[in-house]
Amino acid sequence: MIKMLKKEIRVIGIDDAPFRKFKRGKVLVIGTVFRGGSLMDGVLSTKVNIDGNDSTKKIVEMVNKSKFKPQLQCIFLDGISLGGFNVIDIHEVNKKTRIPVVVIIRKKPNIEKIKTTLTKLNKKNKIRLLEKAGEVIKIGDIYVQLAGLTLEKAKEILKIVCTRSLIPEPIRIAHLIASGVVDGESRGKA
Amino acid sequence: MIKMLKKEIRVIGIDDAPFRKFKRGKVLVIGTVFRGGSLMDGVLSTKVNIDGNDSTKKIVEMVNKSKFKPQLQCIFLDGISLGGFNVIDIHEVNKKTRIPVVVIIRKKPNIEKIKTTLTKLNKKNKIRLLEKAGEVIKIGDIYVQLAGLTLEKAKEILKIVCTRSLIPEPIRIAHLIASGVVDGESRGKA
Repeated sequence: MIKMLKKEIRVIGIDDAPFRKFKRGKVLVIGTVFRGGSLMDGVLSTKVNIDGNDSTKKIVEMVNKSKFKPQLQCIFLDGISLGGFNVIDIHEVNKKTRIPVVVIIRKKPNIEKIKTTLTKLNKKNKIRLLEKAGEVIKIGDIYVQLAGLTLEKAKEILKIVCTRSLIPEPIRIAHLIASGVVDGESRGKA
Repeated sequence: MIKMLKKEIRVIGIDDAPFRKFKRGKVLVIGTVFRGGSLMDGVLSTKVNIDGNDSTKKIVEMVNKSKFKPQLQCIFLDGISLGGFNVIDIHEVNKKTRIPVVVIIRKKPNIEKIKTTLTKLNKKNKIRLLEKAGEVIKIGDIYVQLAGLTLEKAKEILKIVCTRSLIPEPIRIAHLIASGVVDGESRGKA
């Protein structure tokens, strides 16, 4: 028997702020805790190194030390990396938080092109993480990668949280916050 | 004949981040642009000097340069000052933006006590601004100060934007964002 999810399911959406490419330094990362697709309960933040290797660790820390942790049922990520090429190991995030992870991708990624770029930049170790993340699956008009939950479960959660656009509301809002704080005014879409 | 306000009325709610008292420096200020009481359309930010004199100017600049400016019908402030004693001249904000201003106050302020503190701190010039802000009016379980709109109009807008708590949703969310960005996790109530 399938247990139906509540409309008030607690989830977190994570996105990074705009930053200058090829610049060293850190980028602001925002996590928004939502109850369902419309009520924001809290805001978390951390920083990761631009093109660095600490995004997995920083996400795990931010989530695990949050007072909302016990209620969280899904982590949404806006793409598989933060701060440029700081690629996230989504299976590690799932393992260390024991919360399912859904990567949201707006456009079908050109994996071969990304691999060529990473090879040129001498960042072959990132390719392994990209491959480890697993299959890119189309759901409606977006794509996802999953860790720790079934496609059916992911579809069910997405129906609850995509209230205002194609993407989960916690990710849309995390994007508005991160860009508004760094640029002075939020721009465009998540 | 009274023109009814739309449920989708665009407003901005402004709050500052936590900061250490008696420390010099700047404090983050967040503005959230809402359509009615539940949909956040954008995030603005600026910084003001702790216990400084630039809050009026910084709020006017942040609002006037925003792409949302033409639609904004009300500015909500969480108290009459930002960054400690950086008191806002709400009539100046109203004049320079041509948008009505509503100060939200959770507990009836002890004006005499504040005046005594300001006198002790040698900040008598702030007392003039506090007095200029005008009468503190009770509406339901909160208090307000108004610039550029009638009490009736303020009550009408408050009915639309206080969807989740006693205070306008844009202020509740501005508080969550400002404290989440600065402290790593949002705390308590706006």
